[in-house]
Amino acid sequence: MDKIQNFFFDNEIEKKVVGDGVERKVLAYNKDLMVCHLFFKKGAIGALHHHPHTQCTYILKGKFEFEVDGVKKVVNVGDTLIKQPDVVHGAVCLEEGELLDIFTPMRDEFV
Amino acid sequence: MDKIQNFFFDNEIEKKVVGDGVERKVLAYNKDLMVCHLFFKKGAIGALHHHPHTQCTYILKGKFEFEVDGVKKVVNVGDTLIKQPDVVHGAVCLEEGELLDIFTPMRDEFV
Repeated sequence: MDKIQNFFFDNEIEKKVVGDGVERKVLAYNKDLMVCHLFFKKGAIGALHHHPHTQCTYILKGKFEFEVDGVKKVVNVGDTLIKQPDVVHGAVCLEEGELLDIFTPMRDEFV
Repeated sequence: MDKIQNFFFDNEIEKKVVGDGVERKVLAYNKDLMVCHLFFKKGAIGALHHHPHTQCTYILKGKFEFEVDGVKKVVNVGDTLIKQPDVVHGAVCLEEGELLDIFTPMRDEFV
């Protein structure tokens, strides 16, 4: 990714289905940082997985149960999580909602 | 920062005045990634500055005019920006609003 883009306008970004009841927009990113906007229907699942990227999740709307490193907690709007590199994590959407998923470095496979 | 914390609950986090009409909550972070929640009154200013951290900003509420590397644009809810390391950037709040500021690595001076 050679181009330097500073501004990313939401209405110019496509939403893609990435799972059953889950859609994703890839927002601003460069090689070191990426922000994604996730949309979950009630009951939709982010299956347990892991990756070498450090991740932060911000709850934009709704209610989720997250599992991180074997610990499950319910989170609401404004709550945030850190997933350390390679830590197993997943989520279930308890009330239709939205998340921001933030990665360092960026996820090549998302673009 | 030796402790590994995975969950950060918004209602347990203190909001601090960090400027004239600007308040900040430091949300989830580890050494590599930090998310902050900024609250701006209409007319409040984030003065032009720069730092070696890569930064992304997500517009949560309101309307802002951002300047990045000499280019000014108006951004609204859902829009995002990347500020490359050491690039000069600043903002003026046009309608009372909120931002998420995301840094890699984390900002030691914020905690």
